Amino acid sequence: MYRVYGDLQSGNCYKIKLLLNHLEFEHEWEHVDVRKGQSRTEEFLRFNPNGKIPVLEFEPGQYLWESNAILNYLAEGTPYLPGERLARARVLQWQCFEQYSHEPYIAVRRYIAKYLGLPEERRAEYEAKQAGGYAALGVMEQQLRSCAYLVNETLSIADFSLFAYTHVASEGGFSLADYPGVRRWIAAIEAHPKHIPMPPSGAAARL
Amino acid sequence: MYRVYGDLQSGNCYKIKLLLNHLEFEHEWEHVDVRKGQSRTEEFLRFNPNGKIPVLEFEPGQYLWESNAILNYLAEGTPYLPGERLARARVLQWQCFEQYSHEPYIAVRRYIAKYLGLPEERRAEYEAKQAGGYAALGVMEQQLRSCAYLVNETLSIADFSLFAYTHVASEGGFSLADYPGVRRWIAAIEAHPKHIPMPPSGAAARL
Repeated sequence: MYRVYGDLQSGNCYKIKLLLNHLEFEHEWEHVDVRKGQSRTEEFLRFNPNGKIPVLEFEPGQYLWESNAILNYLAEGTPYLPGERLARARVLQWQCFEQYSHEPYIAVRRYIAKYLGLPEERRAEYEAKQAGGYAALGVMEQQLRSCAYLVNETLSIADFSLFAYTHVASEGGFSLADYPGVRRWIAAIEAHPKHIPMPPSGAAARL
Repeated sequence: MYRVYGDLQSGNCYKIKLLLNHLEFEHEWEHVDVRKGQSRTEEFLRFNPNGKIPVLEFEPGQYLWESNAILNYLAEGTPYLPGERLARARVLQWQCFEQYSHEPYIAVRRYIAKYLGLPEERRAEYEAKQAGGYAALGVMEQQLRSCAYLVNETLSIADFSLFAYTHVASEGGFSLADYPGVRRWIAAIEAHPKHIPMPPSGAAARL
């Protein structure tokens, strides 16, 4: 059985949960609290030498890390990852965009505001990340105004990768008012019968 | 014919050139100077709405962006991208690691030092990125002390992704003295008969 080490309040971990729920893959979820140093213990560093969540234990003692690599592994052969060469590359294009041009702005601002309580010493960083976050939303909007989903008009792991932090962007101080395509896309993902919402804060440890 | 828009002094672009050279794929290289705003023109934003290089024009008027997506697209069906599910996921694992935990430290320090001349107003950022860069090198070292290459003991696009900025890490003020596995791996990649070095500064516009 699959086992995932992660925190459901982290979008990078939640995106794995979302796919697992859609695929109805049986799995165990092991909560890891990064703020308590649980991803830096000697044991955890054997799972992922980079000390980050999520980690997938796909066979006992066999680990895969990096959220988008895990999504690609789990979705292989399912409708959530196209088989055709260009479509696969487009999925990766959006996933790489997410990790480099979206997450470092939107997720990091959310972390500073929601988890750290926007302390004065990080306010400059928080402000500096606003423009990059809106730029990323603008790139998404351009695609989602004319397309139902990010790749080939069908729901894929590219959507899960970007949904994870976009749908909670308001927690990082971002407004989606000027992004109707993004809002429509969020609503479509949330309306899927196999959707599972991100649990409210404080609930993560119980799941 | 493939056309690549990029700057060979950028590791993210050079990694594409490296693979194209290995594969002996005919291509044209269109130099784009980011510092002159050439990736933010109206024309360029039609290629990539995110305004970043590299971009691959794989058919006339058809564009793919994000360096690792481009590598996966070009390497499909070649020995540089394994066909097996887990090996493919491992390639992505290392490529995602590169974009999130390696490039923002090692490439950005190199940019600040080499291109901006380490201006006083960015010195704090430069210093702050040292620890993260060495942490990334440490993760690579752990793998490369016992394995010839990053995935399955054979040269893959994962190696090109990480080679691009690692082999010029000294330009960002990093020493590889304590990373013998990384140094051996760099030498092995450079010794390949189809290797093409990163051109010296100032030569990019001519290639």
